[in-house]
Amino acid sequence: MMNAEIIGVGSELLLGQIANTNAQYLSKKLAELGINVYYHTVVGDNAQRLKEVIATAQTRAELIIFTGGLGPTKDDLTKETIASVLGVELTTNAEALESIEAYFKQSNRVMTPNNKKQAIVLEGSAVLPNDYGMAPGMGLTVEGKHYMLFPGPPKELYPMYESYGQEFLAQKLELKESIESRVLRFFGIGESQLETEIEDLLDAQTNPTIAPLAGDGEVTLRLTAKHANAAEAQRMLDEVEKTISERVGEYLYGYEATSLHNELVKELTAQGLTIASAESLTGGLFSERLTTVSGSGEAVKGSLVAYHYEIKQNILGVSEHTLNQYGAVSEQCAAEMAQRIQQLYKTDIGIGFTGVAGPSKQEGHPVGTVYIGVAYKDQAPQVYSLQLSGSRQGIRSRTVNYGCHYVLKMIKK
Amino acid sequence: MMNAEIIGVGSELLLGQIANTNAQYLSKKLAELGINVYYHTVVGDNAQRLKEVIATAQTRAELIIFTGGLGPTKDDLTKETIASVLGVELTTNAEALESIEAYFKQSNRVMTPNNKKQAIVLEGSAVLPNDYGMAPGMGLTVEGKHYMLFPGPPKELYPMYESYGQEFLAQKLELKESIESRVLRFFGIGESQLETEIEDLLDAQTNPTIAPLAGDGEVTLRLTAKHANAAEAQRMLDEVEKTISERVGEYLYGYEATSLHNELVKELTAQGLTIASAESLTGGLFSERLTTVSGSGEAVKGSLVAYHYEIKQNILGVSEHTLNQYGAVSEQCAAEMAQRIQQLYKTDIGIGFTGVAGPSKQEGHPVGTVYIGVAYKDQAPQVYSLQLSGSRQGIRSRTVNYGCHYVLKMIKK
Repeated sequence: MMNAEIIGVGSELLLGQIANTNAQYLSKKLAELGINVYYHTVVGDNAQRLKEVIATAQTRAELIIFTGGLGPTKDDLTKETIASVLGVELTTNAEALESIEAYFKQSNRVMTPNNKKQAIVLEGSAVLPNDYGMAPGMGLTVEGKHYMLFPGPPKELYPMYESYGQEFLAQKLELKESIESRVLRFFGIGESQLETEIEDLLDAQTNPTIAPLAGDGEVTLRLTAKHANAAEAQRMLDEVEKTISERVGEYLYGYEATSLHNELVKELTAQGLTIASAESLTGGLFSERLTTVSGSGEAVKGSLVAYHYEIKQNILGVSEHTLNQYGAVSEQCAAEMAQRIQQLYKTDIGIGFTGVAGPSKQEGHPVGTVYIGVAYKDQAPQVYSLQLSGSRQGIRSRTVNYGCHYVLKMIKK
Repeated sequence: MMNAEIIGVGSELLLGQIANTNAQYLSKKLAELGINVYYHTVVGDNAQRLKEVIATAQTRAELIIFTGGLGPTKDDLTKETIASVLGVELTTNAEALESIEAYFKQSNRVMTPNNKKQAIVLEGSAVLPNDYGMAPGMGLTVEGKHYMLFPGPPKELYPMYESYGQEFLAQKLELKESIESRVLRFFGIGESQLETEIEDLLDAQTNPTIAPLAGDGEVTLRLTAKHANAAEAQRMLDEVEKTISERVGEYLYGYEATSLHNELVKELTAQGLTIASAESLTGGLFSERLTTVSGSGEAVKGSLVAYHYEIKQNILGVSEHTLNQYGAVSEQCAAEMAQRIQQLYKTDIGIGFTGVAGPSKQEGHPVGTVYIGVAYKDQAPQVYSLQLSGSRQGIRSRTVNYGCHYVLKMIKK
């Protein structure tokens, strides 16, 4: 197994003007090839500090990837510094120079001498052409260590990696093993509870590995298996997934980069069901989320955001009795909101959200009190009550996730 | 001047599951205080490698900030590793434990023993409370070097830094120069046009500095002034702002971390006006954005998301003639949506959104066609037409920004 370090060069990263999304992108790509990324480092446009960073990386990585600092300005000193550390000469690459000259000719701009600097490469390196900019990338091996240089702009780096960089790596790796991974997504179970349920599996993991990650009320597990044979690696993933599902399968709602609202739209569409929402504390967020999914128009008829009492009563048609007797933040109101929107919009499912997103109490209820009503066909509406914590936005967001979760459970039965 | 290194701890960063936006955020904040960030480092959940990273950081930084690895699971080992490197004991913090227990009690969930681990802190450290999660942060000084620990989730880290972290730093720094900054927010003018208008100012800037940043259809300028006297620094900011406003003031809509929807709610509330929206392509996003503002209930009565033709006609009451003659994606429909929601919800302002968010054409209109109707009191509705580009989400988001912009201009007249 090869170990890698990714070094981002550029003061704009250290000033916080941009996030290091290049390191994220390359990490994902290297993981696909089974390369362990153990470190990311960011250093400014400073030759001395960059030299020290390279020296440290050489003690701990076999593959060192640089992003940024290949441009035409004085600040750009990645190539020069690497050349000096490795004792490699710099030389002008004829093809790169030609393409830079062609670029200026085509765009009718004057080529200043510093632009020629971009055609300079490390002697002996494989040049990675830049199809979306001027500075070419490089790959070279010196004393058993591999070095790769990419330009900083993501729109140049991504296609360069995919078209030329990955091939360079594959040659160096002589890949023998397939690495297959799978992400399982859970909702309705906390991170620590999930980890407690599968603690023995987490402790004993070697191949496949199991990596938990939590966020916004959901938990994911990334399973990764290695085997000479890809099909066998997949079978290993099936097996560990089965063991996990036997324990916490009721909370598993999807795979890979999906979301609860995405799964809900998919399931509604598959079953030919329609939905509409009556929203108070969520202010339209449920409807907004569902309609981010393209093609959601088949299942989602719309929403009625009743942020005022009078809209709940006069437009949505929640009874005066309910509002006076139980208040707008009540089980009864959630149930009626669900039923009324179902009738009004003539849908299979009506869902109603009411509660207190904060920052202050409402009708005597503490912040985080949430009622979700779901009316499904001609069944009596179900009401779920929650007590959530966190910020106003966090409460609204998790309320919507719970709403998707309840409807999914109901229609999947 | 203090030099800093930011160390992100977490295998999810090295696997590329998330980008290191924490380092970006903290870098910006430290720059505001005049602290030089010379390195970002990311390391996995591995005690040995983390130890080595700390040792390297100690040779080159006076302030070392850690993000991540404070959670309840076995993977989370930031505190333990720092304690071992610095020779500091770990101790349970009573207040943090209390707030964790309260969290579980309030949310009716079972507290597993590993959650208690989150209340453990480095002995002698200043504890930074976590108002949006469980793991507290820490700040401590050992042998002249400062260490700060923050939880990984940005929604916990950002408010923790602002409420408690910055104060810890200010004390350690004994800042002699005041650094004052101000963010001006513009909408309706492109980044390059704005930069052209103030090119001479950008070229000549020294103190105050002027830093432009563009995103989601808006442009911001961050002005930063340094002076021994804070009031004098503010006066310098006033002066450069005045010069900028004389040129592009008509596009300036707000200051600091505000947003168009925030300014809109503020202005509506100040004028005692009410609003409701009829939304098609935006799917509820306008209403959702407005209601993220706490206290928006006074101005925002609600919304009607008419994602289906029949909802537009039967519930909202757009005339059959309009829908048949001009289609749902038309100026006429936008105008009627605005007028109908104004009547139905009895508000001062009605706004209607219709158009094509993509990914495919609709009624023969290309993706990005947008019509926004605004009905204000008894004036004839105004319709604005846009041709936007970008992704489905980008088009929806910018449509809402334009909607806020138009209403703001109208009611500020």
